[in-house]
Amino acid sequence: MNDTYTVSDHLLDRLAELGVEHVFGVPGDFTLGFLDHIDAHPSIEWIGTANELGAGYAADGYARVRGLGVVCTTFGVGELSAINAVAGSYAEHVPLLHLVGSPSTTVQAAGRPTHHSLGDGDFEHTLRMTTEVTIAQAVLSADTAVAEIDRVLGEIVRTGQPGYLSVPTDVAEHPVARADDPLAIEIPSSDPAALAAFGAAARQLLADAPSPVVLADVFVHRAHAEIELHELLDAAGLRYASLLWGRRVVDESGPNHLGTYIGAASDPGVRDAVEGAARLVTAGVHFTDLISGFFSQHLDDATRIDLLPHTAMVSGTVFEQVEMKDALNELRRILPARERSTEPRTPPPPPRADPTDGALTQDEQWQLVAAAIGPTDVVLADQGTSYYGMGTHPLPSGAVLIGQPLWASIGYTLPALLGAALAAPDRRPVLLIGDGAAQLTIAELGTIIRARIPAVIVVSNNNGYTVERAIHGPTKAYNDIAPWRWTSLPAAFGAAPGAHQTFRATSGRELAAALAAAEAHPDRMTLIEAVTAELDVPDLLTRVARAAAQANAPRRD
Amino acid sequence: MNDTYTVSDHLLDRLAELGVEHVFGVPGDFTLGFLDHIDAHPSIEWIGTANELGAGYAADGYARVRGLGVVCTTFGVGELSAINAVAGSYAEHVPLLHLVGSPSTTVQAAGRPTHHSLGDGDFEHTLRMTTEVTIAQAVLSADTAVAEIDRVLGEIVRTGQPGYLSVPTDVAEHPVARADDPLAIEIPSSDPAALAAFGAAARQLLADAPSPVVLADVFVHRAHAEIELHELLDAAGLRYASLLWGRRVVDESGPNHLGTYIGAASDPGVRDAVEGAARLVTAGVHFTDLISGFFSQHLDDATRIDLLPHTAMVSGTVFEQVEMKDALNELRRILPARERSTEPRTPPPPPRADPTDGALTQDEQWQLVAAAIGPTDVVLADQGTSYYGMGTHPLPSGAVLIGQPLWASIGYTLPALLGAALAAPDRRPVLLIGDGAAQLTIAELGTIIRARIPAVIVVSNNNGYTVERAIHGPTKAYNDIAPWRWTSLPAAFGAAPGAHQTFRATSGRELAAALAAAEAHPDRMTLIEAVTAELDVPDLLTRVARAAAQANAPRRD
Repeated sequence: MNDTYTVSDHLLDRLAELGVEHVFGVPGDFTLGFLDHIDAHPSIEWIGTANELGAGYAADGYARVRGLGVVCTTFGVGELSAINAVAGSYAEHVPLLHLVGSPSTTVQAAGRPTHHSLGDGDFEHTLRMTTEVTIAQAVLSADTAVAEIDRVLGEIVRTGQPGYLSVPTDVAEHPVARADDPLAIEIPSSDPAALAAFGAAARQLLADAPSPVVLADVFVHRAHAEIELHELLDAAGLRYASLLWGRRVVDESGPNHLGTYIGAASDPGVRDAVEGAARLVTAGVHFTDLISGFFSQHLDDATRIDLLPHTAMVSGTVFEQVEMKDALNELRRILPARERSTEPRTPPPPPRADPTDGALTQDEQWQLVAAAIGPTDVVLADQGTSYYGMGTHPLPSGAVLIGQPLWASIGYTLPALLGAALAAPDRRPVLLIGDGAAQLTIAELGTIIRARIPAVIVVSNNNGYTVERAIHGPTKAYNDIAPWRWTSLPAAFGAAPGAHQTFRATSGRELAAALAAAEAHPDRMTLIEAVTAELDVPDLLTRVARAAAQANAPRRD
Repeated sequence: MNDTYTVSDHLLDRLAELGVEHVFGVPGDFTLGFLDHIDAHPSIEWIGTANELGAGYAADGYARVRGLGVVCTTFGVGELSAINAVAGSYAEHVPLLHLVGSPSTTVQAAGRPTHHSLGDGDFEHTLRMTTEVTIAQAVLSADTAVAEIDRVLGEIVRTGQPGYLSVPTDVAEHPVARADDPLAIEIPSSDPAALAAFGAAARQLLADAPSPVVLADVFVHRAHAEIELHELLDAAGLRYASLLWGRRVVDESGPNHLGTYIGAASDPGVRDAVEGAARLVTAGVHFTDLISGFFSQHLDDATRIDLLPHTAMVSGTVFEQVEMKDALNELRRILPARERSTEPRTPPPPPRADPTDGALTQDEQWQLVAAAIGPTDVVLADQGTSYYGMGTHPLPSGAVLIGQPLWASIGYTLPALLGAALAAPDRRPVLLIGDGAAQLTIAELGTIIRARIPAVIVVSNNNGYTVERAIHGPTKAYNDIAPWRWTSLPAAFGAAPGAHQTFRATSGRELAAALAAAEAHPDRMTLIEAVTAELDVPDLLTRVARAAAQANAPRRD
């Protein structure tokens, strides 16, 4: 390692500047030189994962907590193994850098059949593929590397979506000057005239009407407007509901929280309060099929204000270049302070039934798990019984729940937990995942163990893809999976006896005891196999699955 | 399930017609309807894998043995998880169908933010991505489904490369008529004039010269010309060498086999025989970096005949539309029958050293493993120490070795073994894989166990990516991996005590005993952890790695 400052060093220093302390990936011969620079970097650590999809998911989980995640793979084979994770970050608006080590400029120019290429002399197949799922891309060359790195990173941060950098082995080592200034990022700002016009329209709509109800979802987080939302809700004492995607943007345990809105699949009280509100403000809401009961939302355009990250609407009239933060502050100025809703409604406390000795049911499982979640936990719930099982249980104030309801790639949360845990070492990481989903990405359990993450992992063993059974083929063999011995896996993946504990829970009492043991040993990794019946499905999932089956059915004209 | 004959049934019957008996994949809500048709099909079985990359690799392994493989995934998430496998099939010319269940025509037309989509209303992102790594594609519609299925399958068979079919849920159930005729496949044939011209040129080049040496590689298999090659070699008694990619197209144990040619990395005797031949015939040779010692082959154009699947060359003159089979038959007519080479050369028999009690070395490991390979084995050797360790040991006549030296995606062989084993139930499946590689795809060990494949699995535990260490960073932490307890994994993944056996071998004697136990219990799955030192590298890999490091080095002008 010599002391020349290189393209690799510039890239790493920019990443450090943006808060990155960990890079996830699998080494390959086209990335090894770059990895030396990570090895030498004072604040960035390499986290080698079992495979590249795991690295991509981990980087996505990291980004959802830290604001930027990095997955580093090798050309061709590595990058394509990770591309599903990158697409998920794109769909769910997660800022991720996919960094690819590629063959040297000379090798690429020669067009020879090189390993990890398709052998046809064309080294841009994967660049074109990645263009479909990233917001900015560059294959670095020595002359423009610094400018291109800064451009792609700037776009990732500005848009909150993934970008792609391919670094040929020789360019990685190219000497460059240290940057004098921090990365210039174009922060979008409101057009004052548009903001004023929005304010006037909002004031008119809200005049002489009861306090609006607020419906908030994940794009409040993506717009970095959580503080402004909380200030609005608090200052004006508004009632609010949230959606399943953004279970972090509002305090679900607050007295004014109405509950979770899921269109026709909502609890009737929540549905009435949202759909029947005289005025409704939506903040960061983007209705997708799985969070809307398959587009069964019924909201009145005329009495509604919609706030998106960079756009606002009042009664359907669009105001471009109005930032969500500014719009929320504007509403705070408009609405009378602390006017309590005429019908304050506190959600009922979760039932405090004692755990039972009967066979564990999904219903009891999620009650017990929800009760065990603490205010500093980061919870990852895989799309399926876990996500919907938790869907009807409010989180304690401060807890964060991460899921992936649009891209909905099962198995995502297991590696994402690795990333989220490293991004937020002060939070207890909790993973809720089904057996079928866990099989997709199980290899990263070894990485979680190697990184000494004291995670609490609840694997719902219901002998297969219960979420699919709920939709179609409840007893078909294709919804079965290989029967694994879940509690034997941590030791096989290298967990030391004193560093982990495992439990198999077949009753509520056993599950409660296992969750208590996790609480009692916060330094250990705890894996709990929660055994429920194949066809036992959380209520909410039944309702959503029914709508899914309908959407997939052949049209009968 | 009603009795209507549907698009799904037509597709499955076509696949059955082409020899497919197993479809690999992970179910998703967009494929469940189609899976019902597999469930009902008389001769096709669903093999559910742990994840989609595993399914893709398994289908590739199946195709390399059976002639066509099928991987079935769900839209977006599933197909992108498998796309690295599809790209590998494309690069290595393996006929594979990637079958994707997609949202219904109605849902796609509505352009709504549906799960597994990017949420932007564009349902063709993945179609465009897959176009880079497949030879033919179609998104089926009710009206044209049958024709499009036949077109894409025909192209896969004709070209021997992957194709893609996206089947919306409603189209899968669309009623169609049963096909009257088998699938029409355009079989390319030689242009008689071109073939005659080739024959004349070849006759002239070969006149008054010693018998040519033949250098054969994998495209002999891809061109289905193995029989014609064997007939030529046998009839004319020619000496021949082979390359690492196509360790199945010649009899490596035959008396006229010279050895393996790897450019400058060859054994000197082999190199001299090939490069110094007065006349050389190459059959199905496509030099890639890893099989040519990084393009260090030195072959004389003027004295050479090259046979590719559909083209032949004599002294550099190209004859288009000359099929390899026809060209080989033409050479058989030209060359005098059974003229023995003036210098017949029998390769020395493999050294029969007794296994030792000292610490196991790579050298001893591969000697013992090679000696244990039988003539009906199908051996899968992962790109790395396993592939190169086996590279210098001739296979017994009849054995097939599968690797992936161009795409070189580590971890490929573990799921590929599942596919190869189901495709060839009469062969003993043997997997040779490193610990780092096995971590990428370990979840399919559970699928191998579930499918009761009596595989012999040798995991080379050398504590990390030794192939990378040989190239760069021999002692760097980024080449370390999570330390797993390999012999505990089968039981954790569900293997019953009587159905499997595991061994940890740290000496040659222990390895020999474990291999003997595998032989003694052919009905059990045997997993052998072969422990060697971190920096112990097969000789051949050292030579190839040196060339790789040079290719990746920054240019020093």
